[in-house]
Amino acid sequence: MHVDLIISGRWLVPVVPENMVLENHSVIINEDRILDILPADKASKKYSTANQQDLNTHVLIPGLINNHTHAAMSLFKGLADDLPLMDWLNNHIWPAESKHVNRQFVADGTRLAVAEMIRGGITTFNDMYFFPDITAEIASSIGMRVCIGLIVIDFPTAWANDTQEYFDKGQQVHDSLRHHPLIKTAFAPHAPYTVSDQPLQKVAVLAEELDIPIHMHIHETEFEVNQSIENHGIKPLKRLESLGLLSQRLLAVHMTQLDKADIDLIQKYNVNIVHCPESNLKLAAGFCPVKTLSDSGINVSLGTDGSASNNDLNILGEMRTAALISKGLERDPCALPAMEVLKMATINAAKALDMADQIGSLEIGKSADVVAINLETIESLPVYDPISQLVYASDRNQVTDVWVAGKQILNERALTTMEVNQLHHIAKTWHSKISAG
Amino acid sequence: MHVDLIISGRWLVPVVPENMVLENHSVIINEDRILDILPADKASKKYSTANQQDLNTHVLIPGLINNHTHAAMSLFKGLADDLPLMDWLNNHIWPAESKHVNRQFVADGTRLAVAEMIRGGITTFNDMYFFPDITAEIASSIGMRVCIGLIVIDFPTAWANDTQEYFDKGQQVHDSLRHHPLIKTAFAPHAPYTVSDQPLQKVAVLAEELDIPIHMHIHETEFEVNQSIENHGIKPLKRLESLGLLSQRLLAVHMTQLDKADIDLIQKYNVNIVHCPESNLKLAAGFCPVKTLSDSGINVSLGTDGSASNNDLNILGEMRTAALISKGLERDPCALPAMEVLKMATINAAKALDMADQIGSLEIGKSADVVAINLETIESLPVYDPISQLVYASDRNQVTDVWVAGKQILNERALTTMEVNQLHHIAKTWHSKISAG
Repeated sequence: MHVDLIISGRWLVPVVPENMVLENHSVIINEDRILDILPADKASKKYSTANQQDLNTHVLIPGLINNHTHAAMSLFKGLADDLPLMDWLNNHIWPAESKHVNRQFVADGTRLAVAEMIRGGITTFNDMYFFPDITAEIASSIGMRVCIGLIVIDFPTAWANDTQEYFDKGQQVHDSLRHHPLIKTAFAPHAPYTVSDQPLQKVAVLAEELDIPIHMHIHETEFEVNQSIENHGIKPLKRLESLGLLSQRLLAVHMTQLDKADIDLIQKYNVNIVHCPESNLKLAAGFCPVKTLSDSGINVSLGTDGSASNNDLNILGEMRTAALISKGLERDPCALPAMEVLKMATINAAKALDMADQIGSLEIGKSADVVAINLETIESLPVYDPISQLVYASDRNQVTDVWVAGKQILNERALTTMEVNQLHHIAKTWHSKISAG
Repeated sequence: MHVDLIISGRWLVPVVPENMVLENHSVIINEDRILDILPADKASKKYSTANQQDLNTHVLIPGLINNHTHAAMSLFKGLADDLPLMDWLNNHIWPAESKHVNRQFVADGTRLAVAEMIRGGITTFNDMYFFPDITAEIASSIGMRVCIGLIVIDFPTAWANDTQEYFDKGQQVHDSLRHHPLIKTAFAPHAPYTVSDQPLQKVAVLAEELDIPIHMHIHETEFEVNQSIENHGIKPLKRLESLGLLSQRLLAVHMTQLDKADIDLIQKYNVNIVHCPESNLKLAAGFCPVKTLSDSGINVSLGTDGSASNNDLNILGEMRTAALISKGLERDPCALPAMEVLKMATINAAKALDMADQIGSLEIGKSADVVAINLETIESLPVYDPISQLVYASDRNQVTDVWVAGKQILNERALTTMEVNQLHHIAKTWHSKISAG
C-alpha cells in the first residue's frame, strides 16, 4: 500500500501503553493520521512511500503539549527578572502590556513563541492572552496546533472594554474558528481575583453549551487565597465550586496552595491540574503537590507559563524540573519517575484539553503529531533506557524533526514554515521599542 | 602590538567586577594569558593578530567551573534512575563499579565527560574518582583544566588496597603532576562515613604540607548525620572539626543537612560549600540553604556530581536550577539572582580551588579561559539583560567556542582535540559490556 509518509525510529515511545519502548519501529502516516505502527522491517514490505524518514539514532514520541502559555509575552522575555512579584507586575509587566500590547505585538510575539516551541518538540499549546484570534491565525498558519483562550477579565484592555465585549468577542472567535482542524477554543477567565461572580457563572454555562474547556489561574499564591477569604469568606476553589466552575472541563493552572480539603474538591469534580514548576519557582509562588495529586488519580499536565516568568517555553525542561523537585520535596527519589512526567506532557495534557482521541500518544487513528529526538549525542550516550535518557539527559536542541497532522514543520532543526531572519528582525524591533519604555 | 589572539564579543561579562556588562569589547590574548580587555574599536588600533575572532551575537564569559564531578561515571549515565538511594547504590552503582571500573573505564568515561563539559562551556572540573592519574592525563591531553582528587577511602578498590596505598599512590600522583599547567591536585577523602579518624587526620596534615585543597562529600543525607551521631556522638561536621579538617582548604560538597550551629562552624573556618542542586533533588537528599550561606558571606560554588545521579554535566543548567529552587524554597523571587549564580559557577569556584589568581573571571593577567555563548537565537532573543538571558533563557548548546589557556578546544561547537566518532564508539562499547551485567 502506498502511503504519504513513513517515519522509522531507533526507538519509539507511544506513551499509550505506558512504559513501552519499541525498537526499530515505523509510524505509517496517510494524510494527517497515523495509519499503522509496526516493526520497520515489516513496514518496508507492507507499505511504500515517496517520503521515507529513517531516523536511526532517534526516539520518536508524540508531540509535546504545553498546557499553559501566554505566547505573545515572549517579547518581554527577560525584561524584568529577580524582582518581588508585585514590583514585577505593577512596575514592569503591566505597564509594558498597557503600553505595547496590540494586534501586531500579539502576532509577532506569537511567532517568536511558536518558533521556540516547535524547536523544542511542542506541537500543541494552550494559550491565554489578548487577541486570541491573532494567536490562532499565526499558530495555525505556521502549522502548529493551538487551544486559544477566550479571555474574560473585569477590567478593560486593548482587547475589550467590558465584560459584555469580552464575551461577545470570545463568542465571535469561537464561532469563526470552531471547524479549523488545528484550532480549539477554551474559555479563559483570568483568575478568581480578577473576574467577579456573574461573568464566572456565565463562563460555566457557556462552556457547557459550547462544550469547550475552561482555562484559569487558580490558587497561584498564598496572597490570592488569603484575599479571597477576606473578600468572600471562602477560598477561591470553594467559591468556584459555588459558581459551578468545577468540573472535568476545568484546567486549573498553578494550584500551589492546596490542603486536604482542596484536593478532595479537585478529586470530586475531576478538575485537571496544570503544573508550571519553573514559573512557580521563579516567582516564588509555592509548590504544587504533584505526587499527592497524581497518587489520588487526579489528571496533572505541564505548562511553561509565559516567557516573562520562566523564561523559556521548554516542556522537556519542565518535565525534568517537575521530576526533580517532586523527588526533592517528597524526599523520595522514586517520586514522579521519567514515564510519569512524559505522560504529563502528552496524554494527560491531551485529556485535559478533551483532545485525547486526537493527540497525546502515538496510536493508530490519532493525528500524526510526531517528534523525533536524537539520543545518540555526546550528551545522551550511552542509552540504557530511552525514556530516562529523554527526561534526565537530553536537551531540547536534540529535537530534530517535528510533524503536526502529518505535515513537517521542523526538518533537521530547520523551521520549514517560518523565516528565521524575520524572527530576528521581529525580536530586535520590539526590543528597541520596549527598551525605549 | 602583535598578539596571538583577539576575541571580540557583542557583550562581555567579566564577572569581576560584579554586574558589569561591557558592549562590543575585545579580549586580547598572548600565549596563555589575558593581556588586555578594551573596546573593540580601540583594540583594532592598538593590537594586531593573525587570529581574530569576531563574535558579534555572543556574550563572552570566563570559563565555567564544575566543582564536583565523578567524570568517569558518565559511562553509567541513566543506568539506574528513579530508585531509592540504597537500592541505587547497593544493587546498581556499586556492583557496576566493582565489576567494570579499571584504567580503561576511567580513561573512556573521562573522555565522554570532558567532551560533554567542553560543549557546555566548562573549562575546569574538580573530580573525585579512582585512577585520578588517568583522569588528569586524559583531561589535560584534551586541553581541559582539571583538579583531580587523591582519593582516600577505608575499603579496597581497583585503585588501592588499603589506607597506606591510597596515600602512597596519591602522593606519587601529586609529585609527578604538580608542575603541569592544566592539572591541580586535591585530597579527596570520600565522606565522613567512609573514612576513619586516622586517615582523616593525616589528610589534614598532608593537605597543609602540600598546600592543596580537600574535596569531600559532607552532610549529604539525614542518614549520614544520624549515623555519625550514633557512632561518634557528634555530627560529621563537628567530628571533622576535631580532626582538623575544617579550614578554607575544604570544599564541602552537598551540605544539605545544616542547622544554625553547623552554619556558624562553616563560617568560623571559612569552609567552601559546593552546592549540587540537581543531584540533591534527584536523589532526594535534602536542600542546601544557599541563600543563608551566601548571606553569611560563605563561599558557595556549584557542581553537577557524577552523571549517574544527575544525569548531565551541565553547569549552565545547575545555575538555573540553583536560582530557581532557592527562590522557591525561600519564598523570595529575589533570592539568588542571575549574577549570583554566575559567580558561583566562576569566581566563587575558583576561590574554593585556591585558583582565583588564575581563573574564574576575565581579568588582565589571568589565564585565557574564555567561553562564547550565542545569545541571538530564537530561544534567547530579545536580549534586555545578557546576564539574565544567559541564566534563565539559554541552553548549553548556545555555547559555540571555548578556549582554555588561550587554546581553542571548541570551535563553532566542534571539538578541536577529540574525535566524535571515537566517543560514540566508546559509549557503545561500554554500553554493551555494562548492559551484559
